[in-house]
Order: sequence, then structure tokens, then C-alpha cells
Amino acid sequence: MRLSNYFLPLLKETPAEATIASHQYMLRAGMIKQNSAGIYSWLPLGLKVLRNIERIVREEQNKAGAVEMLMPTIQSADLWKETGRYDAYGPEMLRITDRGDREMLYGPTNEDMITDIFRSYVRSYKDLPKLLYHIQWKFRDETRPRFGVMRGREFLMKDTYSFDIDKEAARLSYNKMFVAYLNTFSRLGLKAIPVKADTGPIGGDLSHEFVILAETGESEVFCHKDLVEMDAPGDVDFSGDLSNYVDERTALYAAADEMHDADEFAKIPEDKQLTARGIEVGHIFYFGDKYSGPMKAKVMGPDGKEHVAMMGSYGVGVSRLVGGIIEASHDEAGIIWPKSVAPFGVGIINLKAGDAEADAACEDLYNQLSDAGCDPLYDDTSDRGGVKFSRMDLIGLPYQVTIGPRGLKKGVVEIKNRRSGERHELSPAAAIVFLQTELGS
Amino acid sequence: MRLSNYFLPLLKETPAEATIASHQYMLRAGMIKQNSAGIYSWLPLGLKVLRNIERIVREEQNKAGAVEMLMPTIQSADLWKETGRYDAYGPEMLRITDRGDREMLYGPTNEDMITDIFRSYVRSYKDLPKLLYHIQWKFRDETRPRFGVMRGREFLMKDTYSFDIDKEAARLSYNKMFVAYLNTFSRLGLKAIPVKADTGPIGGDLSHEFVILAETGESEVFCHKDLVEMDAPGDVDFSGDLSNYVDERTALYAAADEMHDADEFAKIPEDKQLTARGIEVGHIFYFGDKYSGPMKAKVMGPDGKEHVAMMGSYGVGVSRLVGGIIEASHDEAGIIWPKSVAPFGVGIINLKAGDAEADAACEDLYNQLSDAGCDPLYDDTSDRGGVKFSRMDLIGLPYQVTIGPRGLKKGVVEIKNRRSGERHELSPAAAIVFLQTELGS
Repeated sequence: MRLSNYFLPLLKETPAEATIASHQYMLRAGMIKQNSAGIYSWLPLGLKVLRNIERIVREEQNKAGAVEMLMPTIQSADLWKETGRYDAYGPEMLRITDRGDREMLYGPTNEDMITDIFRSYVRSYKDLPKLLYHIQWKFRDETRPRFGVMRGREFLMKDTYSFDIDKEAARLSYNKMFVAYLNTFSRLGLKAIPVKADTGPIGGDLSHEFVILAETGESEVFCHKDLVEMDAPGDVDFSGDLSNYVDERTALYAAADEMHDADEFAKIPEDKQLTARGIEVGHIFYFGDKYSGPMKAKVMGPDGKEHVAMMGSYGVGVSRLVGGIIEASHDEAGIIWPKSVAPFGVGIINLKAGDAEADAACEDLYNQLSDAGCDPLYDDTSDRGGVKFSRMDLIGLPYQVTIGPRGLKKGVVEIKNRRSGERHELSPAAAIVFLQTELGS
Repeated sequence: MRLSNYFLPLLKETPAEATIASHQYMLRAGMIKQNSAGIYSWLPLGLKVLRNIERIVREEQNKAGAVEMLMPTIQSADLWKETGRYDAYGPEMLRITDRGDREMLYGPTNEDMITDIFRSYVRSYKDLPKLLYHIQWKFRDETRPRFGVMRGREFLMKDTYSFDIDKEAARLSYNKMFVAYLNTFSRLGLKAIPVKADTGPIGGDLSHEFVILAETGESEVFCHKDLVEMDAPGDVDFSGDLSNYVDERTALYAAADEMHDADEFAKIPEDKQLTARGIEVGHIFYFGDKYSGPMKAKVMGPDGKEHVAMMGSYGVGVSRLVGGIIEASHDEAGIIWPKSVAPFGVGIINLKAGDAEADAACEDLYNQLSDAGCDPLYDDTSDRGGVKFSRMDLIGLPYQVTIGPRGLKKGVVEIKNRRSGERHELSPAAAIVFLQTELGS
């Protein structure tokens, strides 16, 4: 993409309403624009990151055997009355009356609807397990939306729902999602720790939150240090036994504020005790028959009797992760994107736009990097070098290539690694090979 | 995908509420489920088609130089009051009051919001032209939602907005979208005819609808037959002059009911007069300063003076197209997907699941076709042959491969072309080569 054709409206000043790094940088880097309180437009740069995260979340769900579908944003209140949640949910639910005076709502979650879909079609234990997910916009009418996309009102979530014949089978589904989440967050460049969680208003008795560590985290996390250092399982057989991956993690202490037990924590060797701030980016629940019971979602079992399906739900905050990743990965100059979610792989800085030689070298590199799948953003504007450098640092692409008359005389361009700050000079041809290798494409 | 792991809930009976083929087949083939009037869940098979259409629409927008972003579904009423549309829009707009008693709405379209975004950032003619688009769910509270996804309440649209310094420049943007639409619909396997359109409540003086021909079409279309036979422009230089592609089409008569001029139509040679039913799948408008005027969206021109940006908008009904394609392409047995949007490339039918040899041959073919990028759906269930054949015909994948003991003895499998009905026998190895070539992957 050529910057002159793109839409990247940067802000020079940090807007006063933004108090945390991700909110500040997302506004300054032209990733989002607030349209009303807690409701944002995703400008092109922000949307690319959002879609990259969404893609990785999707790929890991598919690997785990979950099947994608899509439920609508607007729901009828009827199902919510059936489960008793319509009255229980409170003012965070955006309630709507349509032109026919029917009570509707903008879905804050989808347990009721997916249970209705399940009971409409599935009749036999032979069709189980079923893991269904969707990635859809949701709405929660927060009193005080804040921190940009971290606590917005309209937000993008992936939610998966599992249906099993009994609790034992449901635990297998739970384990699949537990492992899928470890892999997902690892691919997003994050260290995510599964912590014991309160089941909250959704209910049930088995629940973990996945928390990433960041100084601005909303809650305090207490855990065994080894949890942070453990690698994600990676390529595993999801039809096999996954309990070892889950057990070796849940055996180690990890809890946030509300579930913290100081006495248990004290039993960890002192040099292994970790206390840090964390941001919740995923949450998995087993809640049994909480919805399937009242909604009569039953299947015929191998015993010839009807069984209520045992359910779980599994959420990832896709839009929240954009902010979460920035909180975990930035410096004074701006964002530092992990390669897997970066909006572009590399930025090309033309130090002397208008100079025939510099223009030709940039064009050439731009075309070759495009063909090599490195997805370059070419700053072809007439701004001065300083402006271009700070712009590239702010938007945080993994690599920058600077091309100017002085280097070209020596036959070299300069490559900068945004994260390490390391710079080195290479011939244009070597730069392409280097970037293609580094960006894994 | 193995059918046993998938979620493909077929209906045996045609639901009484469905009166047109696309609605009937989408329900019967387990593509959608109605959640409330005019609001649908997209089940896995339906979602795959929707995403394929979305991808093609996106690729053609990108080729034309439009930049993708994403505006939210919920909008504040403030902008709509600024343009006077809040009162003008009528009861089709879903109006919402949030917990702070602010007037909000579920966006039925986005001219007001995009104009606000534009005026917030763009200051100079040097930043023009700008073509911005998004693909987002919209809501129109129809009195009588019907025909399934063809006239639903919550629906997916791609809308592009163009900003130019004057009308002359705006016409270049209009032409880009005109050509992009011809290419888009052609890749979707459709013959789409650009017809002169009424500008309706949005206003302006240059507008075309893109209409596909189908017996169940909502309006009558009158046009010169040559329009139907003209090929799409294909690979063109979008920075060049596109007026010849537009002019050679607009020179030929084409109009729907409300814009039809019988006298003009009569001037066409009789053997070139075509009257048919049509379905609107796209609509492009130039509307000048209708929104940018009242909203003061101005840029500094090369003359040092402020100019109101001249705008156009360009819509494609993405979810509506799923129904539209079925209306244009089906038979008595079910849907016939064009290859470009088919949910899977090929279906594998195991005629004798449980038979060791048949199972092994199917597994092998399934793995090889998966590796070859043919995206097979493998019917590994224990249903009998007849059930499997009619299921495959109903869901309409471009090819079916049938494997059974009798063929295996001869060393062959049978390939059926869903559209032509043609069948031929090939060795499994030859079948893979054939399908890989046919499915272009």
C-alpha cells in the first residue's frame, strides 16, 4: 500500500480523554475514531490488526474442531425470558422495541440463542460433541465506557458453545478450548495465564480466565512464575487426551483479586511467587444444564433415554485484544506489533521523495516486497525524514527500510527492527531476502 | 470437512413460510435459521457462502483502489439530525434509547457517519480522491420482512463512499465503482445489468442499479439484449480512463419499471428487445454535496479556496446476493453453486461406509483433495446412498465423487458435474488431477 493512496489520519496531540497507552496510541496512529461514547469506527490501520487477530482466533478454533457459524446482533427477548435472563441482566443490556412493538435486544452474549438452535436440530448423542462458534459484534451498555476498545460498548467477540452428553464428555470439550486458547494467545505474541475464575452471573462450576500481563492491567494477578514461562502446546491431536496440558497448568497456583487465597499463594517458593497486573482476554466456562435445562435441549442417549445436553461457553475479546496487545507491547515512540498481527510487515521510507534515483529504488523495492508477500507500506509522501521516522515508529510495523541518496551511492538501504531498535545496512536484494525470511512468507 | 464433524441440519419438508426457491433451499439445506422475523442465523454452510461472496466483493474493491475500514452498527442520532435525515427516514429506522437516555439508532446506511469521519481528518485536495468502504451488518425495520435473506431486517452490505474535489473528478470515482461492480458480479457467476435508476430518498442526479435476471425477480427490467452478452472488463488499469467501459453500456437502453420509457425501448431493433424479471444486487449513486454541504465537509483546493467535497455512495447487498445467486442458479433437486462461491469444492460420497476398502479409498481421496486445496466435504455417515445423493444435490457443490465397492473393483470412482449432470469414471489419481484443474486451485 502506498501511503498517498491510504487513509491514515494521525493525530499530533494525545487526546485528553485517553489515559492508557493503547487508547492513546490507537487514536494517535489513526486506528480508531470514537463515534459516540464507547462506540468506535475502525479506520483502515486498526481494521487490519483486528482482522489479523480474528483470523488467528478462527484458525485455532477450526484446528480444535469447532465449526463456525454466525448469529445475528439483534435478538428477540422471547428466548431470554425463557431462561429468566431478560429480567436478570440489568441495564447493561441494550433493549429495543421494534416497529411492531416487539421486545428485542442487542445481544450481549448468545447462550440462549445457540441453545435454541441446538434444540431445533440435534436429536441424538451420535451428533455430539458439538462445538459451534461465531465471531460477532456485541453490545453492553456500560455506564462508563473507557480505555478505548478495552471497555467499549460495541465490541467484537469470538464465542464458542459446546454441547455434550454428560459432564465427563463436556470436560473434553473444555480441555480442547483450554488448549486452543493457549495456542491462540501464543500466536498473538502474548503470554496468557489461565487463572481460576469466578463463574459470575453465567453460573457453573468450572471456569478459567486467560490473563495477559501488562502494567495497566485492570486486576491484580497472583501466580506461580513457571506458568508464565511454559510454552504453548502447539500442534496437538485434538481428538486425543489433552488433560496433561490442562493439568500441568492448573496444578500451579494462579488467581486474580477476587479468587485470590493468600495462604495458598504463600506456599509457593518465594522466588516463584509472581504478583502482577493483568488484562482478561479470554474466559472459558462449564455451566452444565443452566440453559439447556430450562430450554429443554435434550438428546437421545445410547441408553434410549433423553439427556439434557451439558454445555460450556468460551469467549475471546477480539477487539479488546487489539488494545491488550498494545498494552503489552509498546514503548515511548509508539506501538510495537508482534509480526503475526502487524497491519503491514514493513514500512518503506523514501528519504528524498522527488529524487529520481530514490524514487526508482523505492518503487522497485516496494514492488518486490509486495510480490514476496511482505505487505509493505510505502511512505511516498513529500514529508521530511523526521516526520516519516516518527510516523513509522508510532504505527509500529516490525521492520522499517530507509532509502536515501547517501545509502544508494554505497548500494545499500537501512533496515531497522522496530522492537530491538537494531539497524543494519544491506543491498536492496539482500534486504528482500532478509525480510522475506523474517516475515515468514 | 467430514460431515460427521460438521453441523449441517437439513430439513426434509419445505417450510410453509418460504415461497421462493432461494428461501426454500436455504432453509432446507441448513444454511440459515430464522431467529425472529427477517433476522437469521447463518449456519455453517450458509456462512461459508456469505464469506466467499464477501471476499470477492472485497478483492474487487481493493483492486479499484478503495480502502477498507469498519463503522459501527450503532450510531448516535446527532449526525442524522445534522443532515435532517433523522426525521426524514421513517419507521424503517430502528431507533434506540440507551441507558443514558441518548437517542441512538441501528445504522440502515452510513453517509452521515462517513462524512463526519472525512471532515474530521481530511483538509486538502491533495488527499483526494478518497474511496472508503466497509462491509457491515445493517438493519431496516421492514413492515413485512419476506423472501428469506432477500428482504430481511438485519442484512450484510458493502458500502463505499467517494470524496472528490468536483463533479468531474467524482465521475472518475463513479466509473471505478461501475467497472468494479461489473467485475464483481461476473466473478460471482452472475450476469448483472446496469440499469438507470431513480435516486430515491438519497437524492442526486447520476445513479445505476445492477440487476441480475431471475424469474422470481421483484421488478421488471427492459433492456438491449447486447448488455446481457457483454463480458466484464476484467483486469483494467483503475488509474486510467474507464469511461469507454461505462459509455458502451450506458449507451444501450436499460431500465426497470419505474424508469421505463416505452417509446425509447421501442426504438431498439425488435430482436434485441429483452424484457425480464430482475433482482437488484447493487446500486451506485452520485449525490454531490447532499451530505457534505450541510455537514461542512470541505477541503482546501489548488486555488487556495475551500471546496465542499463531492460525494457518491456505492452499495452491494452481500447477504442478499446469497439468495440472488440461488434464484439465478438452481434446479428441481437443489442449489447449483458457481465455483467461486461454493461452500465446498467437491462432495465425497462413500456408498458403503463401514466397508474397509470403501472407507480407506474415501479417506485417501479426502486427504489428497484436502491437500490439493479442493476443500472437500466428505459424507462419512452411515446413511444410505439415496439419502446421500439427494443431500449432495440439494447443497449444490460443483462436483460429487462417488466411491463404492463396485467401482473400486474396476479401480474407478465416479465424478458428477452438478450443473451439467454429466458423469464419468476415473481412477482416483486422475480424479484428483481433474478436480484440481477444474476448481482452479
